[in-house]
Amino acid sequence: MSKHTVGFAAAYGTSALDKAVAQTFNEIFEREVAVFFVATGTAANSLAQAAIARPGGVTFAHREAHLIEDEGGAPSFLTGGARFQAIDGAVGLMHIDNLKAAIKGFAPGNVHAGQPMGVSITQSSEIGTLYELSEIAAISTLCRENGLPLHMDGARFANALVSLGCSPADMTWRQGVEILSFGGTKNGCWCAEALVFMNPTHAREMPFIRKRSAQLFSKSRFIAAQFEAYFADGLWLELAAHANAMAARLADHIKASKKLRLAWQPRANEVFAIMAKDMSTKLHEAGAVFYDWKAPHSERNLVGENETLVRLVTSFATTPQEIDRFGDLIA
Amino acid sequence: MSKHTVGFAAAYGTSALDKAVAQTFNEIFEREVAVFFVATGTAANSLAQAAIARPGGVTFAHREAHLIEDEGGAPSFLTGGARFQAIDGAVGLMHIDNLKAAIKGFAPGNVHAGQPMGVSITQSSEIGTLYELSEIAAISTLCRENGLPLHMDGARFANALVSLGCSPADMTWRQGVEILSFGGTKNGCWCAEALVFMNPTHAREMPFIRKRSAQLFSKSRFIAAQFEAYFADGLWLELAAHANAMAARLADHIKASKKLRLAWQPRANEVFAIMAKDMSTKLHEAGAVFYDWKAPHSERNLVGENETLVRLVTSFATTPQEIDRFGDLIA
Amino acid sequence: MSKHTVGFAAAYGTSALDKAVAQTFNEIFEREVAVFFVATGTAANSLAQAAIARPGGVTFAHREAHLIEDEGGAPSFLTGGARFQAIDGAVGLMHIDNLKAAIKGFAPGNVHAGQPMGVSITQSSEIGTLYELSEIAAISTLCRENGLPLHMDGARFANALVSLGCSPADMTWRQGVEILSFGGTKNGCWCAEALVFMNPTHAREMPFIRKRSAQLFSKSRFIAAQFEAYFADGLWLELAAHANAMAARLADHIKASKKLRLAWQPRANEVFAIMAKDMSTKLHEAGAVFYDWKAPHSERNLVGENETLVRLVTSFATTPQEIDRFGDLIA
Amino acid sequence: MSKHTVGFAAAYGTSALDKAVAQTFNEIFEREVAVFFVATGTAANSLAQAAIARPGGVTFAHREAHLIEDEGGAPSFLTGGARFQAIDGAVGLMHIDNLKAAIKGFAPGNVHAGQPMGVSITQSSEIGTLYELSEIAAISTLCRENGLPLHMDGARFANALVSLGCSPADMTWRQGVEILSFGGTKNGCWCAEALVFMNPTHAREMPFIRKRSAQLFSKSRFIAAQFEAYFADGLWLELAAHANAMAARLADHIKASKKLRLAWQPRANEVFAIMAKDMSTKLHEAGAVFYDWKAPHSERNLVGENETLVRLVTSFATTPQEIDRFGDLIA
Repeated sequence: MSKHTVGFAAAYGTSALDKAVAQTFNEIFEREVAVFFVATGTAANSLAQAAIARPGGVTFAHREAHLIEDEGGAPSFLTGGARFQAIDGAVGLMHIDNLKAAIKGFAPGNVHAGQPMGVSITQSSEIGTLYELSEIAAISTLCRENGLPLHMDGARFANALVSLGCSPADMTWRQGVEILSFGGTKNGCWCAEALVFMNPTHAREMPFIRKRSAQLFSKSRFIAAQFEAYFADGLWLELAAHANAMAARLADHIKASKKLRLAWQPRANEVFAIMAKDMSTKLHEAGAVFYDWKAPHSERNLVGENETLVRLVTSFATTPQEIDRFGDLIA
Repeated sequence: MSKHTVGFAAAYGTSALDKAVAQTFNEIFEREVAVFFVATGTAANSLAQAAIARPGGVTFAHREAHLIEDEGGAPSFLTGGARFQAIDGAVGLMHIDNLKAAIKGFAPGNVHAGQPMGVSITQSSEIGTLYELSEIAAISTLCRENGLPLHMDGARFANALVSLGCSPADMTWRQGVEILSFGGTKNGCWCAEALVFMNPTHAREMPFIRKRSAQLFSKSRFIAAQFEAYFADGLWLELAAHANAMAARLADHIKASKKLRLAWQPRANEVFAIMAKDMSTKLHEAGAVFYDWKAPHSERNLVGENETLVRLVTSFATTPQEIDRFGDLIA
Repeated sequence: MSKHTVGFAAAYGTSALDKAVAQTFNEIFEREVAVFFVATGTAANSLAQAAIARPGGVTFAHREAHLIEDEGGAPSFLTGGARFQAIDGAVGLMHIDNLKAAIKGFAPGNVHAGQPMGVSITQSSEIGTLYELSEIAAISTLCRENGLPLHMDGARFANALVSLGCSPADMTWRQGVEILSFGGTKNGCWCAEALVFMNPTHAREMPFIRKRSAQLFSKSRFIAAQFEAYFADGLWLELAAHANAMAARLADHIKASKKLRLAWQPRANEVFAIMAKDMSTKLHEAGAVFYDWKAPHSERNLVGENETLVRLVTSFATTPQEIDRFGDLIA
Repeated sequence: MSKHTVGFAAAYGTSALDKAVAQTFNEIFEREVAVFFVATGTAANSLAQAAIARPGGVTFAHREAHLIEDEGGAPSFLTGGARFQAIDGAVGLMHIDNLKAAIKGFAPGNVHAGQPMGVSITQSSEIGTLYELSEIAAISTLCRENGLPLHMDGARFANALVSLGCSPADMTWRQGVEILSFGGTKNGCWCAEALVFMNPTHAREMPFIRKRSAQLFSKSRFIAAQFEAYFADGLWLELAAHANAMAARLADHIKASKKLRLAWQPRANEVFAIMAKDMSTKLHEAGAVFYDWKAPHSERNLVGENETLVRLVTSFATTPQEIDRFGDLIA
């Protein structure tokens, strides 16, 4: 960012740097995409929904999706009143049969129920799991059959990507994803979130949607600058790979321990473990920093009465030493 | 209504008739209430929510509440983006433990989750059942402890009232209900819906909320005229008592039949029965008019694989002969 | 309405009567139109705007348009935040040069300004004047050049029609009007307002827009019943012609009087007169009922310092005797 | 910002740095204020309005206010449909008589008009002029008499402050300003905008309003970091003083030139000049960078037919050499 503080530049996303970074997005996605920088991940998700909003509209997402649980009503507010219907499914992933049944619940033209307007999946999910490419393709087929655009909340896009070992195009439009919330903040940027439209027709009104939502930066080039550095020499994939590796190392420690067990197999940079409540207390006393986590609806029976579920997040900045210290603690 | 078409009258709810009917509401509720006529039951429910809306706000209601399932997104739209969280409970009634847990899920100040803004109960419920007065009181106590206004969707208020055999005051403010959607349309009026505030502080902004929602009639006195006739000589209670009696008579026929069974005990003017699918076909062929009904979430296991749940609604206009004809059919 | 209270009928606008009245609208407009009943004129105007709303959208209307001045923010609220830009013009009619300049003020793609979304004219206007057919055609040509749908607020549609002596088709789609707020309430109905789409593509989302705005009547047929009677044997035109004739008779009295003068030539059923303030006081004392009126912006210099502008409205129920009594008073 | 990239910190505005900067705001304003960081100036203005929004609400601001002219409908959208009424006044400043008349236009309880909800002034104004402290006090007195909170759009707060030579407290709450959009971006920060509530009661719902508007940064401390540096050793005042000085130097050049004239006396860092159109062309050819500016409504007669009004903005980065080079050009 420092590099770009000197000299003058056009404002509101029209600078040479903004354009260069937009071009990088095209290259990364192997097609011409429409990119819009916004201030927060919540903004990316909400404005994606605003772009596809319809009167009386309902978007389907997993019960624990950020869109439903953690965005303080922004998705409903910034769409002018859209609703978000919770779909169940094991380990943080919508089960396609549940999604199918939910869509079917809306008979065409039934104004009392409202109308479906889209589907949103989170990759990697809120609890560190992943949709396989074939699962994404199956969901997008269902979406297409029902005229519903498919959105992907990619707050942890890079973590999912390196875990699946596929390309950005493979994980998105080649499986039918049309709109992507592309997150940089959780993977090392300060504040770099983008909304990427694979299908430019959905982006037509976006410049106005972004402005009316007060999400257009005058000095937009400083978000572009973050993405420039993020993408340079594959840094973004390197950071994500590191975070994932630290999570795998942590999972190994947990498997080796007799005191904890993995709640489910981690696939990205979040590890969920179940342990006795007094174990949790002891670990905290020993200096470990983690949070108790409410068991997901579909996994609510995994956690015993005197047990607790905890979330352990690794990042680009986590060191093997920190992981091993935790490993020693739980051994 | 014809009586009031002659002569001139002040518009927008300020006529002598409007005022007289407002006074009748005071008498019926045994206290000074604030009454606002609106065009539809959906408007009454939605504007009640608008009156208590808060940024990031969430209202709790039963999973099958009209507010959640059947109003085409109006409650979210007309509140500027409020959300409605589904609470489970048997036979169409919120279970207080579920409500308690749901409220507890919102830690004070947790902006990511949003904030509770109210609770809504439906009396009689969507499936013809009733909250006992003590159950309403228990819910309102929980509401008060959490600073949440309690709204009652009374689209079938009169049916509930005559079934419980209590007064309007008993079924509302004496149990802590603060806002009431008072429906006349389903009980014989053409178009007579009112929003009644037991607590005038919630009504302060209502004149402006109603106007911005395009729900202020210029010739408001013709809604007043309907209520005038509705209340005269207790007609409203008579109509509701008749509808309920017809439902009870229908329930008796069903109990006597070996081909159908009651899904649950009807308490107002809606009877739900379970029968074999081919029985349903035969009844339709014989001229019976009724609808298949999606089993409520909490009762989804009541209906066998080759069975169907049907809803049978009686009204002020239903005759004993019609009921008995149906009774003969199913005998 | 009484005629239609017996028997059963399908709800939510699907009854035989609803369909028959929709067909009458087709005949009246000499083409297949899409008709939606709503509760109030404010609802008709606001939902027309919702049907054409765009993010950051701005609709142009005359400075004194009901849409801008008298609907309590409903047009902004029910469109999810649209804005309405005031266009000046003499005697209540937008001047096309001002409209042209205003549209030009929005450079394509300038998100800071927002984007034009439509134009709305009022026929007859808020102050009893009329657009000539050629003026409507000129405005619609400008609209088409700029991709803007043209809406007509026809709260006093019938009064304009009989004054111009043309057909409904002539006054609307033949001049390029695409959406019409068709008012019956001010011309004798109790509560009969309709939104008429000449161009069905704008109506595609209307069923959902109406429902989310809580404007879908369950017993919609009672609005249909009002229109049935309204249109039967040309009653609507007869009522409007009578109201207009009473206004003309009133204008003649004013012209004959030396104490008052016409503010401008009345064309429908509203007469505006200027008189000395003490004259106004005396008339009120003598029992005349009328309101002082704020001088329109473009006519603010017509009214002298010790004078007042008053509005005199005639209706289907006004009698020649009432007019002449007023005539005697001012003579 | 670089200084704060190492180590871990609490997210969502709860870090030690966030708290320290909040404390600095208290010191600068000589009282306990409530500070909320947001992404853009448009967000600050719009969320200020959301904090005071009422159903059917109208805020008064100068005709050329950013809130009205340049924010793409965000203020209407993010308040859920508020309206903004343009008040005229010379050189970019509301005339208090016009404001008084506009407020008076809303009779209490007149739902058709809606209700006043606030007043907003811009300091320094959109065209580089200033309200004197006594003028702010007069406006706030009028506001208090009408129960209206007074908001100040301070996108160029520092420029106004150094020009008036008063303290932040003097220019705000001591004159009755209750909510301030405090801009850092135009005065040297990358992205540092804050909403400052002098009166904490207006801030009660702000955490939820900010979150639902997707304006809560997870790594909020990087906005705090900008403000930390901005305030350190009075840097912010120094930068503003420099920009203002450059504007004064530029104004001197213009006064000395025979080819241009000042449109009005600049008071902050914006200079408006009137010149012949061909002069403008020549200057552009000579490499000068400036924009033609639409003449403000109240000043529309200042600019002759073959003339143009141009805006010249100086900043923290403008050098005397650049100014003098322009001075040479126009000499």
